[in-house]
Amino acid sequence: MVELAREALHTSVTDPVAASMNFLNEIAGRFPDAISLAAGRPFDEFYAVSDVERYLTAYIGHLRAQGLDESRIRTAILQYGRTNGQLGEMIARMLEIDEDIRVPADGIMVTAGCQEAMVIALRGLCASADDVVLAVDPCYVGFTGAARVLGITVVGVPETAQGLDPQTVARVAREVRASGRRPRALYVVSNFANPSGVSLREQARRGLLAVAAQEDLLILEDDPYGLFGLDDRHTLTLKAMDTDQRVIYLGSFAKSVFPGARVGFLVADQTVVSTAGHRSLLADELSTVKSMVTVNTSPIAQAVIGGVLASCDFSLRKANQEKIAFYRRNLQSLLAALERHFADPAISWNSPSGGFFAVLDVPVRADEKLLEVSARDYGVLWTPMSFFYLDGGGSHAIRLSCSALTPVQVDEGVRRVAALIADARS
Amino acid sequence: MVELAREALHTSVTDPVAASMNFLNEIAGRFPDAISLAAGRPFDEFYAVSDVERYLTAYIGHLRAQGLDESRIRTAILQYGRTNGQLGEMIARMLEIDEDIRVPADGIMVTAGCQEAMVIALRGLCASADDVVLAVDPCYVGFTGAARVLGITVVGVPETAQGLDPQTVARVAREVRASGRRPRALYVVSNFANPSGVSLREQARRGLLAVAAQEDLLILEDDPYGLFGLDDRHTLTLKAMDTDQRVIYLGSFAKSVFPGARVGFLVADQTVVSTAGHRSLLADELSTVKSMVTVNTSPIAQAVIGGVLASCDFSLRKANQEKIAFYRRNLQSLLAALERHFADPAISWNSPSGGFFAVLDVPVRADEKLLEVSARDYGVLWTPMSFFYLDGGGSHAIRLSCSALTPVQVDEGVRRVAALIADARS
Repeated sequence: MVELAREALHTSVTDPVAASMNFLNEIAGRFPDAISLAAGRPFDEFYAVSDVERYLTAYIGHLRAQGLDESRIRTAILQYGRTNGQLGEMIARMLEIDEDIRVPADGIMVTAGCQEAMVIALRGLCASADDVVLAVDPCYVGFTGAARVLGITVVGVPETAQGLDPQTVARVAREVRASGRRPRALYVVSNFANPSGVSLREQARRGLLAVAAQEDLLILEDDPYGLFGLDDRHTLTLKAMDTDQRVIYLGSFAKSVFPGARVGFLVADQTVVSTAGHRSLLADELSTVKSMVTVNTSPIAQAVIGGVLASCDFSLRKANQEKIAFYRRNLQSLLAALERHFADPAISWNSPSGGFFAVLDVPVRADEKLLEVSARDYGVLWTPMSFFYLDGGGSHAIRLSCSALTPVQVDEGVRRVAALIADARS
Repeated sequence: MVELAREALHTSVTDPVAASMNFLNEIAGRFPDAISLAAGRPFDEFYAVSDVERYLTAYIGHLRAQGLDESRIRTAILQYGRTNGQLGEMIARMLEIDEDIRVPADGIMVTAGCQEAMVIALRGLCASADDVVLAVDPCYVGFTGAARVLGITVVGVPETAQGLDPQTVARVAREVRASGRRPRALYVVSNFANPSGVSLREQARRGLLAVAAQEDLLILEDDPYGLFGLDDRHTLTLKAMDTDQRVIYLGSFAKSVFPGARVGFLVADQTVVSTAGHRSLLADELSTVKSMVTVNTSPIAQAVIGGVLASCDFSLRKANQEKIAFYRRNLQSLLAALERHFADPAISWNSPSGGFFAVLDVPVRADEKLLEVSARDYGVLWTPMSFFYLDGGGSHAIRLSCSALTPVQVDEGVRRVAALIADARS
């Protein structure tokens, strides 16, 4: 019987971040009754299973209204389809209505979740071992994972309390270039980042776009939480401000609709020019990569998302009012609970203006050992911030997530964290 | 406005095979009324859009019968899910009933189509630039595409009329090793291959398994067409004969159910041992790679496939009787049409014992130029075999596909090809 040596498998298999995430899942499995301030998944009582059929039906109605006969509708939903998907027009309308982003439908690729969008963008842009990407540090683990699977080097740019500093991005880009490598793109979550909760101010957004032009970088803007601000002020995304087409926008429906569709998208409306002078859109060029990763995104899953878009006049912002109110209330509960249970001025946390996450700085080492104690003896789970740092850091910080709980659970969870920290210090 | 140089993008974007396939699609788009002996897609009149709802309902019924309450069913279908998917048990039952393959459910990963299964298996197995894979040559372009996206070298093993010769595989593996590289795996389609139509005889299967053990290779067995033999004789797959766990089996539901679900699977029940002596299943180890490519396979799409499996007592072989009869009749029509329209003994073709494809050797160069003439002046499309060769070859051969046509169309298509060849010779 063959036995394979684990060490002979690719480094993405033995990735320490994956091991950390597995540890977290394993802890969650061992202590199922613990309150999870670790899980960043959306709350799932907004939808019912019957919605799947309802949205499928809505999409079929939409196709009929477009003039498709029953045979073409069957082909659209059950057959192989266009590599870049069939929702380009609908997503373009949604982006214009909700985000003031104006892009042609052909600049949009529908992907098997936002994760695949990251893989495809990274793969297309990084041609050689000298092509590296910059990323906000701490960073969403899905992005570093996508880079790891492709063997692409990620260079961290430290995030401040106000988000990425454009001048720091410029400095890191120059250092990378000075080392003989080519900085191809910068990854950033513009609104209410995972893990830090931090958002970019409008001036910083303009600064990043200027630095991107100056340093010849593209920006990979990830925006899964943009709808969920604490108030109705809405800072334009980098893509909406992008007059130079520097921004590739990574889209997700996991939070604004539900994760089970696994549908995301990539906006890549940049012009690509061949040596022969032929011009095309980056999204079209990237379709060959998409065909090699998943052929095309499940048309059934696309149909469900298409039905949602058709049912809300292409405004997920409007359709998500109930969810927006829910996540606002939860984040307010989290921030209020932190005020309530952490009286010690030596302990601090940030106050994100939206999203699912906040970061608590603690005077003890917030490692896997403490997490295990927390789960077993205090009945509460959280995520060590160290999981998210590219080159070390976050040893005394924890990420608190409030998305999948009720306000009562959030308050009780934070109370338990406070008790854990108080006991760990003494 | 930024302009990106096409030549600065990754080689997977500018892949010549992708360019060939684009050319084929473009020709098909320009001549929509041409009979397509090029399209290898399944015939799509076996299903109706309403089947999606029916199978979803069947899967929900299955989950209820398993004791899941409505809240857990909602989570199963709409939320993020287990990385390796939720159909492991059902697929294991199907494999045992239909294929006499016995594997634990934990050895199965559900993927976003078989394409993603190839990407994940290749990524996990090939750790360094010296790790290469062997592949049957001519080869399915999806496999070479998956390798290209990951920068993995594919070394061809020439296919004979009887399929791969085990001794040739051994020789190529030794040559690779002698060049300082490590042959990690061999890719092969065991039944009615795409593009050649060729199947491995039982003795060759045993020979390949012996060579795999002797040369320390894994075998990536792809079997999308196995159900569609011309008769009911059913040669065991390599995986069913695999007493040494040398075989990773790549599964597809695109032909046995429909492509629109984009659900496939990977059977990787090999034992992996770490230096610390920890033992696990390869499918579990590969789950980190899966999480970095698509997080998990759309649970909605999984539910549809699960509903199909639950509705047919886990036998797709039984459920596919109508399709099996259809594809048999089509392949018989293709072979009969070749007999009818090619009287010249200088022109030959092979006689596959099942599947969607046959290869016609022609006394003229079967290139893109001839294909364009064929589409425009003769109203028939086919695929140059040269598209499928790894290092040149197939210049005078064409792949004929019969899967998406009626017998009348097959006959007329072959008549047109015969006219084209006759005129091109003179």
